[in-house]
Parts: sequence; C-alpha cells; structure tokens
Amino acid sequence: MNGHNSPTMPLDHWTHGISPVGLPLPTNDSLLTMSVHDLTRKLQRKNHSKIVLLVADGLGGLPLEPGGKTELETAKTPNLDALAARGTLGLSIPVLPGITPGSGPGHLGLFGYDPLEYQIGRGVLEALGIDFDLGPNDVAIRGNFCTLDDAGNISDRRAGRIGNDIAAPLCEKLDQIKIPGVEVFVRHVKEYRLVVVFRGEGLGGEVDDTDPQATGVPPLDPVARDDASSKTVEIAKQFLAQAREVLKDDQPANFLTLRGIAKRPPIPTFEEVYGTRPAAIAVYPMYRGLARLVGMDIIGPSTTLDDQMDWLRKSWNDYDFFFIHFKYTDSTGEDGNFDAKVKRTEEVDGCIPSILALDPTVVIVTGDHSTPSKMKSHSWHPVPTMIAADMCRYDGSTAFGEKECRAGGLGQFEAKYLMPMALAHAGRLEKFGA
Amino acid sequence: MNGHNSPTMPLDHWTHGISPVGLPLPTNDSLLTMSVHDLTRKLQRKNHSKIVLLVADGLGGLPLEPGGKTELETAKTPNLDALAARGTLGLSIPVLPGITPGSGPGHLGLFGYDPLEYQIGRGVLEALGIDFDLGPNDVAIRGNFCTLDDAGNISDRRAGRIGNDIAAPLCEKLDQIKIPGVEVFVRHVKEYRLVVVFRGEGLGGEVDDTDPQATGVPPLDPVARDDASSKTVEIAKQFLAQAREVLKDDQPANFLTLRGIAKRPPIPTFEEVYGTRPAAIAVYPMYRGLARLVGMDIIGPSTTLDDQMDWLRKSWNDYDFFFIHFKYTDSTGEDGNFDAKVKRTEEVDGCIPSILALDPTVVIVTGDHSTPSKMKSHSWHPVPTMIAADMCRYDGSTAFGEKECRAGGLGQFEAKYLMPMALAHAGRLEKFGA
Repeated sequence: MNGHNSPTMPLDHWTHGISPVGLPLPTNDSLLTMSVHDLTRKLQRKNHSKIVLLVADGLGGLPLEPGGKTELETAKTPNLDALAARGTLGLSIPVLPGITPGSGPGHLGLFGYDPLEYQIGRGVLEALGIDFDLGPNDVAIRGNFCTLDDAGNISDRRAGRIGNDIAAPLCEKLDQIKIPGVEVFVRHVKEYRLVVVFRGEGLGGEVDDTDPQATGVPPLDPVARDDASSKTVEIAKQFLAQAREVLKDDQPANFLTLRGIAKRPPIPTFEEVYGTRPAAIAVYPMYRGLARLVGMDIIGPSTTLDDQMDWLRKSWNDYDFFFIHFKYTDSTGEDGNFDAKVKRTEEVDGCIPSILALDPTVVIVTGDHSTPSKMKSHSWHPVPTMIAADMCRYDGSTAFGEKECRAGGLGQFEAKYLMPMALAHAGRLEKFGA
Repeated sequence: MNGHNSPTMPLDHWTHGISPVGLPLPTNDSLLTMSVHDLTRKLQRKNHSKIVLLVADGLGGLPLEPGGKTELETAKTPNLDALAARGTLGLSIPVLPGITPGSGPGHLGLFGYDPLEYQIGRGVLEALGIDFDLGPNDVAIRGNFCTLDDAGNISDRRAGRIGNDIAAPLCEKLDQIKIPGVEVFVRHVKEYRLVVVFRGEGLGGEVDDTDPQATGVPPLDPVARDDASSKTVEIAKQFLAQAREVLKDDQPANFLTLRGIAKRPPIPTFEEVYGTRPAAIAVYPMYRGLARLVGMDIIGPSTTLDDQMDWLRKSWNDYDFFFIHFKYTDSTGEDGNFDAKVKRTEEVDGCIPSILALDPTVVIVTGDHSTPSKMKSHSWHPVPTMIAADMCRYDGSTAFGEKECRAGGLGQFEAKYLMPMALAHAGRLEKFGA
C-alpha cells in the first residue's frame, strides 16, 4: 500500500482485472434470494492485490465506568492509530444486534459466511480445535469420560476430572476399536474430554447426546433425529458397546458419553466464492480448523506473533489473502484482566509495521467478537474494525478505538459484509449490472 | 443498576443463569431461515434481572427551523440526561427507512415482532382499542353507521357524524342480534364508529369492506378473498340483514358498513420467545390491547403516570419485564403543539427517579415512532432511544436528544432488534454457537 499513496499511483491492477471470472448468471428464481456469495461469485475478478485480515480475538471491550476508556482506547497503539488515518473505521456486528457469538460463528461471519446459515456443531468445533482434518463424510463427536457405578448408572459425568496422563492412553485404547464399514478415530483433547470421529458413507449427523446431564441414571442410547442418521446410531451403539468392554476396568473412567454429534456443514470454499487464494496463519488449532473449514491453506507452525509475521513474509508470493489470528486479546478479556488485555492489544499494534512492509493492498484489523474484561466473557457489543487501503474514503480518524469506530465511515455493519468490502477495496469485484 | 457500578460488581446473575433453558436445537431445515425469535427462543436464559421499557408515544420530533431544536432537545430533562451518561444511545427505525408506522406496527416492532411479518388488521386494532378481549377465533370488524336514502343508496357514509348519545344505544340494540352457530358482539367506539365481533369456529378473516367509499351507491355485499372466509361472509350477510331491520327507523343512522374485517394474527407470546414474565402498565386501552396481543399481563387501572409508577412498584416482584406506555407526547404532537409536547416530555423525565429507585437491570426509553408537532402526525423519522445498564458500552452521551442519539453507540437500528439488545444487556441470552 505504501507505494501507491501519490496521486499518480498506478491503477493498472485496479481498472484492469486479469480476467473477469465469467461464471454463469444465476437463474431468475435464485436472483430473488441472491446472497452475498451469489454476488461475489458473479462479480469476482482476479488481480495482483493482496489482502491481510488481522483478527485480534475478542478485540472489542467496555469502559469499566461511565466516561472511562475501553481496553483498546487505553492501549498505546501508535501504528494502528497511524493506519486509521489512512483507513475507514466502523463497528462490526458479528451475528445480529444483541447476539453474542462463539468463536465459530464469529469467524465465519468475518470470512463472509452468514453465521445463521452455516452453523457448526459442537463435535465439529471440538475436532477442529485439535487440528483434526475433518472430511465431508465425517461425523464428529465430543466425548466425555464418565464413571458408571455397579448398576450401570452415571456416578460422575466427568470421571473425577481425570488428568491427561490417564486419559490420553485410554483414548489410544479406544482408537483401536474397529467397526466394519467405517473408520473410527479417537483423539484426546484435555482431561476428561475427547473427540470421536466416524468416517464413512451415509452417516447423518442428527443424533441426540447420550449424556443424560444427570447422575444416578444410565447413559442414554443414541437416538437419530432423522432417517439419514439411523446408520450413525447403529455405528455409535457398536462403538459404545466395544468401549464399555475396553474401559470396564479403568476406574474412574470406565465409560464415556457422546455429545454434540455433528457433521461439517456443506460450505463453499473461500476461493470459489471470492476468487482469492487464502492462507491462514494461526497459533491455535481451533482457528486453523475454522480456516480449513472454508478451504484456506494452513501456514505454520507458529507459536508467537513474530513467527506469524515470518510466515506471512515467507508465503507472501503464494497467496493473495492472509488471515492472521491473535488469541490473547480474547483470553485476557476472559480472565477479566483489563491491564493484560491492554498489553496484548499493544502487542497487536507492534506487528503492524511488519505487515505494512509487505505493501498489502488492503489491511483489515478487527475481532471476531468483543470480550470485555469487565464481563469476563464474549459479548454482543459491536467490534472495532478498520479497513486501510488506497481506495478508502478516509474518514478523518486519528486513532483506532471504539469511539472513533462509532463515528467511522463503515458505520455499524453485519460482519458478513466485511469480505465484500475487502474485495471491493482490493479492486476484486466487477460492477453489478450495467 | 445503581449498586453494580464498581469494578468489583457482582456478576453472579450475569455469568450464571439460573438455568439454561435447554430448548431443543432447531433442525437443519429451520436453521436456514433462522429468525430473531428462533435465536431468542434457543438462547434465552432466566436470571433475576429486571427490564423496564418506557415508551413515550411519538417521542421523536423535528426542529421547527434549520438550526433549531426538537421537542425532546428543548425539554428540560435532567433525569434522562443523567441516565444517558450511564447508557448507550441510538435511533430506532420502527419499520423501514421512510415508513411511517401506526400504533400497531410501532409497538410490535418495539416488542421485537417484525411489523412486516405480523400485521394487524384495522378491525383487530379497533377492538384492541376498546379493551375488547379478542380471542383466536374472533373476526373483528370496524363498523361505521351510515345513512341510506329511500332507494337504498348511501347518502352519508358517517350518518351525519352522530354523537355518542345516539350511537351507543344503537350499538346496544345491534348487540342483541343472534346468529346460529356464532356469538355476535357489537360495541360502541366513538360517534359513528363501532366494533362488531363474530366469534366461532371456521371463520376466516379475508373479507372485503362493504363501504363503497362513495355516496349515491348502495353498500357493497361482503365478498370473501379466500375459501376459508366464505362462512364469515354468510354470517356477515345475516348480520347486515338483521341490522337493516333493527335500524330501519333510526334516521340518520339507519344502516352500517363493515370495514377492516380481520382476525388476530397468530403470534407467539412474549414469554415463549424471550423467557420473561411481562407486564404492561398503560392508561389507554389500545396499548393494553397491543400488549395483551403478545401475552403480557395487564396491570392497572391507571389514569396518570404517578398511578403507573405505583403499579410498577406494586408489581415489581411479580414480573421481570415492564412495558410502561405514556400517550401524551404523541397526542400533543398530533395537535401540533410544540410547547405542550415539550411539557409532556418533561413529565416523562419526572418519572425516571421512581423507576431507578427500583434498581432495574436495564432501562430503555424510546418511542414507538416520531410525532413531530411540525407535522401534526406520526412520521418516519427514527426514534430517540436509550438503553441504560451496567453492561453498556457507554458512548459519552451527556443528554438524551435526537442529536446525541444520532452519534450514539446503538447507531440506527430496526426497532425489532431492541428486544434482543435488552435481553443481552440483562444477561438473558446465552452465547450463540461455540
């Protein structure tokens, strides 16, 4: 971006896309319900632009008192503030006003996938969270080790919260279970939590939990909510029967319950809907998983923001869209640690020069939701967002914070519109209609 | 709210709902068209919070001249201004930009019911306006007394605008009409206006008006717009035949026309969609009727705002959502009396301390639409709105007026999103997705 700030900036890639993609027009019927993706599919064009989406998880905050400042407003962010002067600011509504999103809906919204249309089951999210490469035929299940008494009733729904040292070998034993016609994967997550995946044809994902959410009663049998899931139920029953045998001597974890049984939603790829080659650079597996879900390439591994900047530099020529995820603005907010969130926000600020050194066409800084340290949780408050690009209608902002974003040129907008705005600012969308 | 402003505020009811409601997840099909109510049904959680929705009817106004102030900006409102400093402001769009709502759509929007989805026929509104307890099998009709000449043509569509003293006894006579298989109710409204209700099974509400909107022609016969309403047409014909006989000697009101024939829309209750126990405290029957339509309990009677505050105190422990309606900001606007509307706005300001004394979790002050005295009518202008709660992202407002609301943190939003925001600020919504 740096090189294009003069009035005589070269507009070649701007006005002349390499090739309009020329997808067939949707039929009249589908026009009636044309979605953002129908539009971006139709209008996408390729060029040499580069887009960087920097997500500071849980970025939005709250002042502790009336008249006070938020974490972002308190942080010293000279680089973000300078970037704001070259950008347009606004507030992103992750789902709908008043709705607090989890990480899944929060990121899908940023990626331009309506989080009300594409819903991700718990099992799928848990599998994504351990970097499990979930396929379209996989049913993913969140498992909890539990304790059964002699009568077969649950006496502890979390098996005494057993440690990793006990649970991990049990998962390896369960991973040996064979069921004809499907592949079975069992992976340890943390303490009493595990992931079970059934891979095979014809497995529906609409099956009720077997956790009765109570003690003193036996685990429930798996029950299908639709015909397409009856085979999944049969597989689950066989799995549970074998697991009961495998675990019978492993007090306190002598059985397990199955929860959040789900399939990956059918979801079009990022490249198909936007025409960009996307890469994800994330420290935590959950966010790599969410990126993989929409077809991004995963770049890494990285454990620090510096690592992530190294990977950004190394892969710069191979992709044209980069999703960079920073976790700690969320985790410090969840901890209720205002000062720590301020420091982590300043860390985000510190990576901006590394990004700008690569001369991206568009830089977006935002969060997937707010995590005010005052609330120690995700919240519904709209998220500070900035798009910086040469084609911005600069809104005169001189700092990046909730207050400036409230008055910014992007206004308040549903997160799902961020991607079309990113593509537009990158010259990657043709005109709609003549 | 007062007690929770310190950084060490108790977050108990916030982070730990009494019980997640645990409604079944919607099936995949319904997910595709998930509405706000689908979300609030799924995410609602109960806690001990209290929400007060204070509606100053027609609150929004206009300055009389460029550079001038609106009625709300002119009014001395120290209590509302102080509350603004502890809240987040914005402008509510009752239906869609440019659309001026009547009282029905205006209030349904505030209650979170999309006014384009839930439409209320004129007959229903007229019945609600006289406190008639309309059931789901009732067809409600707005009647006008009219004058027929000797040839049976309408010579006066309003029967010389007869007074209440003449019209009320005529309605009592018509109320004696018996029709086999249905109950018939006839109630006087005002002057030449009345309400007719047919109660019975299998009565559709899709019937055209019998008022030809012209004189010198006979009244029209009722005509059904769908098959389900053919029985209604038969009943209406019998009613009109008997009414012609009953009224034949009552010049000038020797007949009546039927208009706005409609049934109550099927509408889910407030408690079902939000999980709150709602109460309505309104002086005027129309607003009690609208509240009853969504299943609120009606508290009263009251004739002044002081009465309403008494009822609020008395019923505080029995409900967790309170709708308080104040009429006179609208009626003074309709009168075109700027100064009177200013005074009435100051009266609203005066009740704020009584509300705050009860320590509500969330206070909302808004209107169902604007009624600028400059226009002497309802208008489409977005409505000044404030949410005050400990979990607000305070937006630095120091006064409650159109100008501050325009720059406020709620932005401009469709009225139907006010309820999810109210529930969110009260900690009554779980996170969406993991």
